Amino acid sequence: MSTNNISTNSDTTATQPKSVSFLGLGAMGHHMAKHLVGQFETVMVWNRSFDKAEAHAKEFGTQAVNLQQAVTADVIFSCLPTSNVVDEVIEQALPHLSANSVWVDCTSGVPDQAKASQAKLKAIGCEFLDAPVSGQTSGADSGTLTVMIGGSAEALAYAKPAIECFAGLIVHVGDSGAGFAVKAVNNTLFAINAWAAAEGLSVLKAHGVNPSDALACINKASGQSFATLATFPDRIVNRAFPKTFTIDLMAKDCGIAIDLQTEKQVPAPVMAQVSSLVRAASNQHEPGSADFSEFAKFYEMMSGLDITDEK
Amino acid sequence: MSTNNISTNSDTTATQPKSVSFLGLGAMGHHMAKHLVGQFETVMVWNRSFDKAEAHAKEFGTQAVNLQQAVTADVIFSCLPTSNVVDEVIEQALPHLSANSVWVDCTSGVPDQAKASQAKLKAIGCEFLDAPVSGQTSGADSGTLTVMIGGSAEALAYAKPAIECFAGLIVHVGDSGAGFAVKAVNNTLFAINAWAAAEGLSVLKAHGVNPSDALACINKASGQSFATLATFPDRIVNRAFPKTFTIDLMAKDCGIAIDLQTEKQVPAPVMAQVSSLVRAASNQHEPGSADFSEFAKFYEMMSGLDITDEK
Amino acid sequence: MSTNNISTNSDTTATQPKSVSFLGLGAMGHHMAKHLVGQFETVMVWNRSFDKAEAHAKEFGTQAVNLQQAVTADVIFSCLPTSNVVDEVIEQALPHLSANSVWVDCTSGVPDQAKASQAKLKAIGCEFLDAPVSGQTSGADSGTLTVMIGGSAEALAYAKPAIECFAGLIVHVGDSGAGFAVKAVNNTLFAINAWAAAEGLSVLKAHGVNPSDALACINKASGQSFATLATFPDRIVNRAFPKTFTIDLMAKDCGIAIDLQTEKQVPAPVMAQVSSLVRAASNQHEPGSADFSEFAKFYEMMSGLDITDEK
Amino acid sequence: MSTNNISTNSDTTATQPKSVSFLGLGAMGHHMAKHLVGQFETVMVWNRSFDKAEAHAKEFGTQAVNLQQAVTADVIFSCLPTSNVVDEVIEQALPHLSANSVWVDCTSGVPDQAKASQAKLKAIGCEFLDAPVSGQTSGADSGTLTVMIGGSAEALAYAKPAIECFAGLIVHVGDSGAGFAVKAVNNTLFAINAWAAAEGLSVLKAHGVNPSDALACINKASGQSFATLATFPDRIVNRAFPKTFTIDLMAKDCGIAIDLQTEKQVPAPVMAQVSSLVRAASNQHEPGSADFSEFAKFYEMMSGLDITDEK
Repeated sequence: MSTNNISTNSDTTATQPKSVSFLGLGAMGHHMAKHLVGQFETVMVWNRSFDKAEAHAKEFGTQAVNLQQAVTADVIFSCLPTSNVVDEVIEQALPHLSANSVWVDCTSGVPDQAKASQAKLKAIGCEFLDAPVSGQTSGADSGTLTVMIGGSAEALAYAKPAIECFAGLIVHVGDSGAGFAVKAVNNTLFAINAWAAAEGLSVLKAHGVNPSDALACINKASGQSFATLATFPDRIVNRAFPKTFTIDLMAKDCGIAIDLQTEKQVPAPVMAQVSSLVRAASNQHEPGSADFSEFAKFYEMMSGLDITDEK
Repeated sequence: MSTNNISTNSDTTATQPKSVSFLGLGAMGHHMAKHLVGQFETVMVWNRSFDKAEAHAKEFGTQAVNLQQAVTADVIFSCLPTSNVVDEVIEQALPHLSANSVWVDCTSGVPDQAKASQAKLKAIGCEFLDAPVSGQTSGADSGTLTVMIGGSAEALAYAKPAIECFAGLIVHVGDSGAGFAVKAVNNTLFAINAWAAAEGLSVLKAHGVNPSDALACINKASGQSFATLATFPDRIVNRAFPKTFTIDLMAKDCGIAIDLQTEKQVPAPVMAQVSSLVRAASNQHEPGSADFSEFAKFYEMMSGLDITDEK
Repeated sequence: MSTNNISTNSDTTATQPKSVSFLGLGAMGHHMAKHLVGQFETVMVWNRSFDKAEAHAKEFGTQAVNLQQAVTADVIFSCLPTSNVVDEVIEQALPHLSANSVWVDCTSGVPDQAKASQAKLKAIGCEFLDAPVSGQTSGADSGTLTVMIGGSAEALAYAKPAIECFAGLIVHVGDSGAGFAVKAVNNTLFAINAWAAAEGLSVLKAHGVNPSDALACINKASGQSFATLATFPDRIVNRAFPKTFTIDLMAKDCGIAIDLQTEKQVPAPVMAQVSSLVRAASNQHEPGSADFSEFAKFYEMMSGLDITDEK
Repeated sequence: MSTNNISTNSDTTATQPKSVSFLGLGAMGHHMAKHLVGQFETVMVWNRSFDKAEAHAKEFGTQAVNLQQAVTADVIFSCLPTSNVVDEVIEQALPHLSANSVWVDCTSGVPDQAKASQAKLKAIGCEFLDAPVSGQTSGADSGTLTVMIGGSAEALAYAKPAIECFAGLIVHVGDSGAGFAVKAVNNTLFAINAWAAAEGLSVLKAHGVNPSDALACINKASGQSFATLATFPDRIVNRAFPKTFTIDLMAKDCGIAIDLQTEKQVPAPVMAQVSSLVRAASNQHEPGSADFSEFAKFYEMMSGLDITDEK
């Protein structure tokens, strides 16, 4: 739970949040919310399926409350499927927010929607931070997530003691939307590194090299990436394809990255190509039904080669 | 100097090499050769500029000898600029080789030339291993290089005690040429990961995010690669561009990877795209005159944005 | 001036427009407007630099009028630099429009802005057609332009007698925005065909084949395109690069095509790659300062080869 | 049968060929050979399945002969499936060739194999021209093919009266291999133009535009290509997919173009990308079993959209 905040400094602010709430107790939120317990006078949780909130209260000592009450907290966290869902919840919450509260949205969302939410909350004296996280459920469990923050430095300074509860690293990357932008680009880089590795391992297999042997070398050499270190050995070469982060969400994130590119007219031919290829791979599945790693099966269809070891 | 050999096993061979030699005392070879001292009865070194060999002998206690004598060793290492240079040296060496010796070529070479060299040596009762290394001069200095081996298991078993002197990891990836193939693909993955990161960081900068802040997040998230962990902070964002591995050699390695792709008709659109882009970047420089990291300057020309932090 | 309308049929509508006006007398509009003369009771013209309107009136017998009067016509044509300029003019025009009039916008515009304009005009009982044209100034001069129409069939039926004055082909391609969409995709295909030809001719030149000889073959074979038939011989191989359609406008059109792609999540890896490359080429010039064909100079910088014949 | 020879001039050579032969009476050769009748003292034909040769003789008055006799002609044409088949036939023919004869190979072959064949024939005083043709069976039937010639000007001058019999255009593009190179690049441009059109039409369909309507516009605008003029209306939008030029041969030609690119280190990112995508599409079929136009079905699988008109 130590914090290595590279861009905001002092924590000795005059006022400190006394109450916090967490909206959305999914695979990530469930763990993130538990780290808040004992750090604040009041820790409330809410979830659309309310039994999840009650179970969380029972297990961790949080208070399961309705949405109207939850959003009265000094710092409100949300961790929901998409920016559109966040928008809906904010609309319902607006009449009930406390003055000067800070909403910290940990959803992997859309930069333009962060700007819109910030404008909405600002208008009533509150603040919105886009604060997507990276680190998977294991990082949420251990409270060591990487948090990429977009929004005002003051809002971040106020909410930081709460964010630190589940963060290993907090980086203030820019104004509203910047956090979501960094997350989308990060995921697109992941997709590119993974797609490229699928190509490279297949070319090598065509020349008689087992993927595991190639990975052993690459992972101790300059071609190494999170994709070769983790995704290929843990999900693809062993044919596990566990469903954790679905390919349609990856295609969505790559699409956000392309929108960021075209909006500012930055040429990005590799991001653009891979974004299209991931979309094509995603089109082979119903939304929510396949892990991102199944992109490799799509590529195997293209190449006619399996990315597995020969016995 | 410990070895983690994932694919060959026993070291208890009946015969052990007694003499070894090292041809080519460049930035890598200088260090690699020193680890052989004290492990074998005879350790010979040779270099085209012979004063380097003499200096090596003086510093490390090796024997500086001419080429004819050097190639009489049981195990001969070469670490030279290109496969073509290796070919020339082999041609000169052929009449002088000892029976049953093993030539271990640590050059980043061409797979087809490895096959040709192996055929040539096999014809006179010797063996050739393609054994490119990864780990930069620091890994050579500490004797912890990753070595990717192509060739026969028997030849590797014989030469292994010598290779282990400078290796942290030895992987036998396949028949002749497979080592060079893995190295070329590894370097192409490195080029792709780096190019993609240049695009992603530039898109983010256009949206107001400093490259260093974005890297801080990405390097603790799924988009992480050797390129984002090392190349960008150490060479590009700080505008250092130190000349260690030149961009024309990277373009050459990417070209080898594309030849591997077309030879076996494996579709690899991302490798192919980036290979062309790296070639274009390399075309802006005289061979040998610019570090690989200067690809980023070429991309900056395309995008009109510098990959540096705003103050 | 004959019309080959492939998707709308009858012209025998009860009411016929009696007055028409043309806003924007640039290189295209100057010619398009002249064909309206004699076909309607009133033919008005307007241009921001009003002397152009007066010159047009003098030369062709049109009426040069102010904007307020011009937009009272039954059918109003606009041919302006961008959708943003059209929006401004529409805002000024709104209070002065006649009931049931049809605005026909021949600008190469943005599909979403066509939808917005149509909504605005619809609200006051008028109609908006996006009606971009293709055929260059020569087609405008001869009245044989290809016109791609988005909007309602009724509005098109009403405006058609006026559009036919300068059209060789009118195609009703869909609802509001569809005309602009087809134009953007057409231009992107042109950019792709041209970029690919630059690559192909350069590869051949590296093998000793003169571009003109290669074009002679390709233009009588399956690789033929408008780019190889016209752009390369007339602009690039002869180093003429006449400034007619600027590269920043081409980059803008490719960007519109990519937005169309991402909006509907259609994977389009080749359009996406070339769109980025054209943007990079455009970034080398001030907006409005270089013809599209100068993309070839950017590619020549990448390849190090000139696309010209050796003597 | 008129000739528009853009790069060789005079026909008034001292010696003229008196006998000609044609090897390979497939869909193209059948027609090409018939145009030779009456132009030379002797016109011989040969085919592996000899009944085809006999049928040709009966229908057109040629002489059906065995291979040994056929290759004694002054000018020998070959039109066979691949360069490898041509090589085999040349090996059998070598002992029987007449001095100073010219072998004109109309196969779509490999540039390096043209150079090897030319060296072989040169060594015994003969000449080899690579002379691939374009124009489909209809052009062969009418004797209006485009012929791209690589080889010596003298050999071409000698063989030209024979080539003119079936040519609408003869272009001498360079030394041995240059003809094959131009053909491979032409076909790759065709593949790129076609793939891009599939993307563009699909993006438009997603926005409600029928492919036929979009094609009507594009074919009268700058995006026009042989692919949009012929391939899409005649083969894809109407779901005909007639098998004439198979997709594996197209993938082979694209592969030749990429080898030309890498051999001379010319960056060609778009050719490289599409070459990989065509290979992936080809991998979905047994060799020889699907027309090139079926690439569109592969792309439809990627996009989830059919390139057909809605009713």
